[in-house]
Amino acid sequence: MTRNGGVESPSPRPRIHQTHPHDTPHFHSTLSERKLRRFNYFILVFRLAAFCFSLSAAVFMIAADSASPRWYDFGAFRFVVAANSIVALYSLFEMVASVWEISRGSTVFPESCQVWFDFGHDQVFAYLLLSAGSVGTEMARQLSAIATCTSSNAFCVQSDIALALGFAGFLVLMISSLLSGFRVVCFIINGSRFHL
Amino acid sequence: MTRNGGVESPSPRPRIHQTHPHDTPHFHSTLSERKLRRFNYFILVFRLAAFCFSLSAAVFMIAADSASPRWYDFGAFRFVVAANSIVALYSLFEMVASVWEISRGSTVFPESCQVWFDFGHDQVFAYLLLSAGSVGTEMARQLSAIATCTSSNAFCVQSDIALALGFAGFLVLMISSLLSGFRVVCFIINGSRFHL
Repeated sequence: MTRNGGVESPSPRPRIHQTHPHDTPHFHSTLSERKLRRFNYFILVFRLAAFCFSLSAAVFMIAADSASPRWYDFGAFRFVVAANSIVALYSLFEMVASVWEISRGSTVFPESCQVWFDFGHDQVFAYLLLSAGSVGTEMARQLSAIATCTSSNAFCVQSDIALALGFAGFLVLMISSLLSGFRVVCFIINGSRFHL
Repeated sequence: MTRNGGVESPSPRPRIHQTHPHDTPHFHSTLSERKLRRFNYFILVFRLAAFCFSLSAAVFMIAADSASPRWYDFGAFRFVVAANSIVALYSLFEMVASVWEISRGSTVFPESCQVWFDFGHDQVFAYLLLSAGSVGTEMARQLSAIATCTSSNAFCVQSDIALALGFAGFLVLMISSLLSGFRVVCFIINGSRFHL
């Protein structure tokens, strides 16, 4: 009641305006952008972790070559190296995209493309990495059952470390796929990646 | 300054009311409930498909026992049977929960539990099924490389069919994890599983 002034007809309009979404972008751009920024930093950390884990998994597996069994003798280990290399490359690209978004405030691709691109690739590559990790673990299990691992123990230990790093990369990528999935649903519901 | 109206104290109130969320529940309950119902039918179909695929995958793998190689001789195939059986049981439960929700209009557990329960289990079991499928495929590939498959071909064919059914179950479960993920984010943003 205290808001009512002594002015004429044009007056009620702006009042409705106040509660209208028309008037909110200022509010939106301050509070929500800060939140989005924090969210983006969070994503960047996960991208960096996924890059480190998958790159080191690939390097460890490639470095694990003793005299007789070499990693490329086993289809399963070739799959592990391939999957981890692909994920490392993808994570590198996503890190650049994430830094771009934090520094410039806009996405690399148009927003609708970007959210779907991120989510789709996160999902697919998380499944790829899990599949490679499972197959590699089965192979390592079989190698340790037969006599290979007693004769060249360093190879088995190194491939086990590579597999563990690959699983760590999978976990990180799975979490970032949840984060980018959240962004997709925000985009579907609100029409923007701002989640307020 | 333009905000000052020439009206009396009670008048501007209802106008603001109009744009207020206070007035919307009626609208909500008709249009949104119909949408939610369609969404639930959609989920029910996927639950049914996941149940059929994973059950038949487990049955096919168990049925694939020739004289010399039996499915429980291989750790990988035991994993396939276990994963598919677990998923079949879970899908059966989720089918019941889905029918309950469609017929009674409320969830089995409290709503906040239910959406997280569904999403979490969908995610974990989709990963489990993919992992089992990958390991089983690697095993089948090794068996076909050595002489086992030429001597008992029926076993290899049956296990291949079981693996294919398991992958189909994974695809269906992956899609329902996306659907239940959508419900979770709706719940986070709107405070209810209604996505309007």
